[in-house]
Amino acid sequence: MQYGIFSYPNESPRVGIRHGDRVVDLSVLAELDVFDFDSSVFYEPFLNEFIALGKEIHERARTQVQSWLTGNATHLEAYLSVDEVTMHLPVRIGDYTDFYSSIEHATNVGKMFRDPENALLPNWRHLPVGYHGRASSIVVSGTDVKRPFGQVKTNGMDAPEFRPTERLDFELEMAFIVGKDSTLGEPVSIDEAEDYIFGIALFNDWSARDIQKWEYVPLGPFLGKSFASSLSPWITELVDLEPFRTAGPLQSPAPLPYLASRVERPNLDLELEVTLTPKNGTPTVISRSNTKFLYWSMAQQLTHHTSNGCNIRVGDLMASGTISGKDASSYGSLLEISEGGRKPLTLKDGSERAFLADGDTVTLRAFGERDGNRIELGEVAGRVV
Amino acid sequence: MQYGIFSYPNESPRVGIRHGDRVVDLSVLAELDVFDFDSSVFYEPFLNEFIALGKEIHERARTQVQSWLTGNATHLEAYLSVDEVTMHLPVRIGDYTDFYSSIEHATNVGKMFRDPENALLPNWRHLPVGYHGRASSIVVSGTDVKRPFGQVKTNGMDAPEFRPTERLDFELEMAFIVGKDSTLGEPVSIDEAEDYIFGIALFNDWSARDIQKWEYVPLGPFLGKSFASSLSPWITELVDLEPFRTAGPLQSPAPLPYLASRVERPNLDLELEVTLTPKNGTPTVISRSNTKFLYWSMAQQLTHHTSNGCNIRVGDLMASGTISGKDASSYGSLLEISEGGRKPLTLKDGSERAFLADGDTVTLRAFGERDGNRIELGEVAGRVV
Repeated sequence: MQYGIFSYPNESPRVGIRHGDRVVDLSVLAELDVFDFDSSVFYEPFLNEFIALGKEIHERARTQVQSWLTGNATHLEAYLSVDEVTMHLPVRIGDYTDFYSSIEHATNVGKMFRDPENALLPNWRHLPVGYHGRASSIVVSGTDVKRPFGQVKTNGMDAPEFRPTERLDFELEMAFIVGKDSTLGEPVSIDEAEDYIFGIALFNDWSARDIQKWEYVPLGPFLGKSFASSLSPWITELVDLEPFRTAGPLQSPAPLPYLASRVERPNLDLELEVTLTPKNGTPTVISRSNTKFLYWSMAQQLTHHTSNGCNIRVGDLMASGTISGKDASSYGSLLEISEGGRKPLTLKDGSERAFLADGDTVTLRAFGERDGNRIELGEVAGRVV
Repeated sequence: MQYGIFSYPNESPRVGIRHGDRVVDLSVLAELDVFDFDSSVFYEPFLNEFIALGKEIHERARTQVQSWLTGNATHLEAYLSVDEVTMHLPVRIGDYTDFYSSIEHATNVGKMFRDPENALLPNWRHLPVGYHGRASSIVVSGTDVKRPFGQVKTNGMDAPEFRPTERLDFELEMAFIVGKDSTLGEPVSIDEAEDYIFGIALFNDWSARDIQKWEYVPLGPFLGKSFASSLSPWITELVDLEPFRTAGPLQSPAPLPYLASRVERPNLDLELEVTLTPKNGTPTVISRSNTKFLYWSMAQQLTHHTSNGCNIRVGDLMASGTISGKDASSYGSLLEISEGGRKPLTLKDGSERAFLADGDTVTLRAFGERDGNRIELGEVAGRVV
C-alpha cells in the first residue's frame, strides 16, 4: 500500500493510504475496528510508529484494509479526495544518507568536476559511494525552495564571494525508508537487507553547484545540498513493487562477498520523468529515466552502510543519488543536461535554462508498468523562490 | 550548570546536574517545588525538552537550583554520588555535523592524505569546512567501541579487501549542542549565533583511517567514521564558560562579512588531555591540547552552517573537528602523533602504538583554569573491543 500523512483543514495530521484519486483515512478505519492490532499508530503525525510495528503487522494492515475496501466502498467518511487534504512529511527522519549509485551520473559529474580522462574514481565500482546528508531540511513535496546564498569562487575570481547561487539544480532520486532498527556493531547481511526496507518514495536533492564546487573538497557536499531536499508524500511499500523487479546492470568487477546479492532481480523497473514548469509557463518534460539504471541496489546500499557496524533506525532515509541513463534525454540533473551550463536547454515556451530560474517548478514523477501491472508512485514537486 | 541524564539502578533515566563529586537529581527538586516553571522536563530521558524551554528558563533554573543548594545542602535524597548512577546519552541528537576547524590538524592530515606541498586546501581559510556525520551511532562515554570491518585498499594491493580496520584512531574534539530551533530559509547571523548554543561537551570521533582513505573521495568520510562517536555525559552551559573566553588565532585573510565576528574573545581556553590505557595497563597521557587553537569559532561554524538557509534544531550536535596544536605533544589523533603510522608511540608499559589495539581505552578530559576560576568538563572514555 501507499502510506502518507495528511490533514483536513484545522485538524491534526494522521495516517492515510492512497487509493486511486482518494485518500483513505486509517484513523476512521481504526474507529470502525477494522484492525486487530494497536491502531493508535494511525493517529500519529508520522508513519514511524506504524512502521516500527514490523512487516507482519504491515501485512495484517494490508489484508484488513483491503477486505474493508472490498466490502465498504460506500462508507464515505473514510474517503477523501486528494484535493481536499494537505499532505505532510510522511516520516520523522532520523539520519539521511545519499548514495551515488548511478554509474552514468558519477561518470558525467566526474568529467565536469574532476578529470575527464578518469571520471570514475577507483573506489566507485567496488562500493556504493555515499555520504551523510542533512535531515532537518528535508521537506514534503509542494514546499517552496528558497534560492540559497553561499560562498562561491569560480575560475577567474581572486577571492570567494557570498551571494545567491547562480547554478541551482535538481537531482532526480529515489529514496527508501528504513523499516526496522538494527543494532550498533551488528552489520545487516545482504540476504537480510530487504527486511529492513519499508518502502520507497521520490526524492529531489536540490543542489547549488557553485557552492558545492567550492566547498566539497575534501569532506564532501555540505551547504551546496543542505538548504532543502524534497520528498514525495506517499511511501510505497516494497512488497507492492514485486511485479517491477528487474536485474540490475552487470557489476564488474564482481562485488566483494559481503555485497554479493543472491537475489536475481535486485533492481526496480520504474519509469521516471522530470518536468520543468516556468512561472506561469508551460510544462516541459526535460528528462525520462528509469530506476533500473542504478548500478548499486538498495540492498547493497543498506548492507554496505551497516557493514562497519553502523546502526540504522526506523525512519532513516537512504537516497539513490541522481539517476541518469546513457544519453542526455535521460540525465537526472541540469548539470548533466546542460553540460555544466555550457549548453542551455530550450523549454516549450522558448526560454532557455542552464540552471533553474526563480519561479521554476520542478516535478519528478514515477510509475511502473509491466505485464499488465501498473503502479503510480506519485510526484515530488517544488518551486524555486 | 552541567546537565546530564542519569539513572539509579532499575529506574528510568532523568535529568541531573553535576555538583562536584555528586549528582543532584532535578526530578527530586521538582517534587520539592524548587522551580517556578514546568519542571516535568526533568523527568525526561533526554535534555531536549529542557533545552527547548530557552535561555530565560535556563537562567531561572540556575538561580533556583543554586538558591536551593545554598539552603538545603543536607537534603540527602536529592544527592547521589557519581559512582552510584549510570550516565546516559544526554541529548536526542537530530543532525550531527563535524567541522574541521583546527588549522594544524587540517594541515597535518592534508600532508598525509593529499599533497605535502599544498596541505591546506584553497577553501580552508575562507570557510569552516564541515560535513554531515551519523547521529545514530553516537554513544555516551563508557560505551565499548567495536573494531569495525570495512573495505580497505592500501598501496600494493590489487583489489580492495573487506577486513577489520588496522588503523583505528581517536579524534580529540569539542562539540556544542544547539539550544534553539531556527527556521528553514532563515540564516542565523554571526551576532545571534551564540544564542543558539546551549552548551558544550567532549567528543571522540573514532576513525578507521584505512577505510576512510579508500572511501572518502569524492563525497567525504562515511563508514570510516560512522561506526561510533563518543560524547561525554555532562553538557556544560555556555554561560559557565565566560571566564575562559579568549581570542582565537588571527584569521587571515579576514573572513567574509557574514562570518566576521564582533565578539572580541570568541574562543575558549580549555585544556585538553588524551590518555591511552592498554588492557590491564598503565595510563599514558599521549596528548595535551587546548580549544583555543581552533581557527574557526563555534559562532562561525553555526553561522556558516545556516548561511544557506539550512535549519538547525534543539539537540543538534556540532563538533569542532580534531583539535591539534603546533607540535606532536598536542596532536589530537594517532594519525598525526605517529605520522601516519610511521613513528609508533611508546607507552609507559613499554608497548608501542601506531594505531589503537584491542583493549585500549582512550579517555579525553577537559578543564579550564584562569584567574582563579576552575571548571572541569569531565571526560569521555571508550574501550576498543
